Amino acid sequence: MYTIGIDLGGMSIKTGVVDENLKIIGTGVLPTNVPCSADELADSLAKTCFMAAEDAGIKMEDVSFVGIGSPGTINPVEGILEYANNLYLSNFKIADEVSKRVGVPVKADNDANCAALGEAVAGAAKGAKNAVCVTLGTGVGAGIIINGKIFSGSNYAGGEIGHTVIKFDGYPCNCGRNGCWESYASMTALIRMTKHEMIDHPESKMWEIAGSIENVNGITSFKAAREGDEIAARLVAKYIDYVSVGLVNIINTFQPDIVCIGGAVSKEGEYLLAPIRGFVERERYTKYSAKQTEVVAAALGNDAGIIGAAMLYTQ
Amino acid sequence: MYTIGIDLGGMSIKTGVVDENLKIIGTGVLPTNVPCSADELADSLAKTCFMAAEDAGIKMEDVSFVGIGSPGTINPVEGILEYANNLYLSNFKIADEVSKRVGVPVKADNDANCAALGEAVAGAAKGAKNAVCVTLGTGVGAGIIINGKIFSGSNYAGGEIGHTVIKFDGYPCNCGRNGCWESYASMTALIRMTKHEMIDHPESKMWEIAGSIENVNGITSFKAAREGDEIAARLVAKYIDYVSVGLVNIINTFQPDIVCIGGAVSKEGEYLLAPIRGFVERERYTKYSAKQTEVVAAALGNDAGIIGAAMLYTQ
Repeated sequence: MYTIGIDLGGMSIKTGVVDENLKIIGTGVLPTNVPCSADELADSLAKTCFMAAEDAGIKMEDVSFVGIGSPGTINPVEGILEYANNLYLSNFKIADEVSKRVGVPVKADNDANCAALGEAVAGAAKGAKNAVCVTLGTGVGAGIIINGKIFSGSNYAGGEIGHTVIKFDGYPCNCGRNGCWESYASMTALIRMTKHEMIDHPESKMWEIAGSIENVNGITSFKAAREGDEIAARLVAKYIDYVSVGLVNIINTFQPDIVCIGGAVSKEGEYLLAPIRGFVERERYTKYSAKQTEVVAAALGNDAGIIGAAMLYTQ
Repeated sequence: MYTIGIDLGGMSIKTGVVDENLKIIGTGVLPTNVPCSADELADSLAKTCFMAAEDAGIKMEDVSFVGIGSPGTINPVEGILEYANNLYLSNFKIADEVSKRVGVPVKADNDANCAALGEAVAGAAKGAKNAVCVTLGTGVGAGIIINGKIFSGSNYAGGEIGHTVIKFDGYPCNCGRNGCWESYASMTALIRMTKHEMIDHPESKMWEIAGSIENVNGITSFKAAREGDEIAARLVAKYIDYVSVGLVNIINTFQPDIVCIGGAVSKEGEYLLAPIRGFVERERYTKYSAKQTEVVAAALGNDAGIIGAAMLYTQ
């Protein structure tokens, strides 16, 4: 038997058939086309399942379960999308509506939680009892796995570690707080800091790499630093400090087996991870414990959300 | 049947017999007298059990279980005190050694975890599935309850939320980090800030209340603020902001049913809690969830550790 995982985003619906070895063997993709009615969204979600099944060369009768990872606050017990800002929907019985259309049991959970579950089941945190998976992207997302299960608190809205303040009275965050980790550790923050440094340092190699302020992206500073630009190297070191301070906060709080780091920035590999591990080693509270949290790069990339959603039947 | 809870501290051992209604019906207290050998400490711990039983008018045969809350990192599965700075001991088989002496099953866990369990079972967080209990004292301690069980991570050293950075590059903490929550929200921090404000403001009523810089305590600023001193009122407001920013970090991460606040500072009651609740309301991430975390004062005071330890058999 197979299961299907759906990664529902604000822009597109990416769906995959997952086999017993937790590999994606067929996919279906459609644009999300929001704002739309709840019925229309359920239709699109179901359609991607049939597309993925066809792509995999199987029938829906061969599928035992469909899992949905959605942005926003999801009540996984009731299968209700309570609120998702970028889908323009609230109190949508997403699991029931999709189940009606595909004819198999459906569960839903938050997308960051699904990605964490994917990494914990089949990726970088494979076999971990306790894991926290952080995504450094447009924002900073996190999913918490405790005793092999997604933990999202008493109202299913937990895990917003990107919105913990690491700098009191710091940079304003979209969430209304000041100094959130997301405001310093996201790719968006890195791009902002890169632009500031370029303005202050017209001599920096970052100008050559980006061409213009408008073209700055998350790679600009890392590329310049690797090529020996000192301004960029200092900026990257500062950014890594911001990332690390939040990671040590997570470790001192959860002491998980593994913290895994995903998102576009994590593609910098050891250039990012080695200094993070040094910082963690210096600042973690538990210097005497034989067992220490490992810090690793996420392994599944964008597939984590699909594989995790497909595994929601274990939750 | 009865159970016994031991609150092992650096200065004293406080032990209580707990009845079926979770009330302490007899106590025994001895000085800890560290540094001492592991055997001597086990002797003292056992002795307080017999003292408490005698005080309660019962025999050790009427006791089914003894639980120990200890500072430091405790492995609750093996009953081993792995490391406790202020007890000058490491790798001490505390549960086995005390069990030999009292003749009943013994378990041990970290003291902040026991206090959290006590509040979750019989105190301010009674009935909560998920709770975080914070103690604002010499330091900032925390205990995490998830699904009714103590959560302390994969190496039993989790829950050090006092050592999460809330102010990047901030005040140096004893733990080696800079800007830990403990460095801003502990009573020690409040006393430090009070002294600074007094030096800058000789006109403040805080001078009258404390008499001298040396006599400043955790109440000085709160008392002056209640009596209308504007300097003190501003200081207290700032302190409450520091406390609150960490509480919202906890809420955004865990979304527990309840956060309860203990320690000496929590005796300020609504004068402390009302502005905290206002701050939490403004800054919490989940404005749309029907269910929101309650913020309450701890109810059991120093008894929380004893009652929680006595309940360790449920873990």
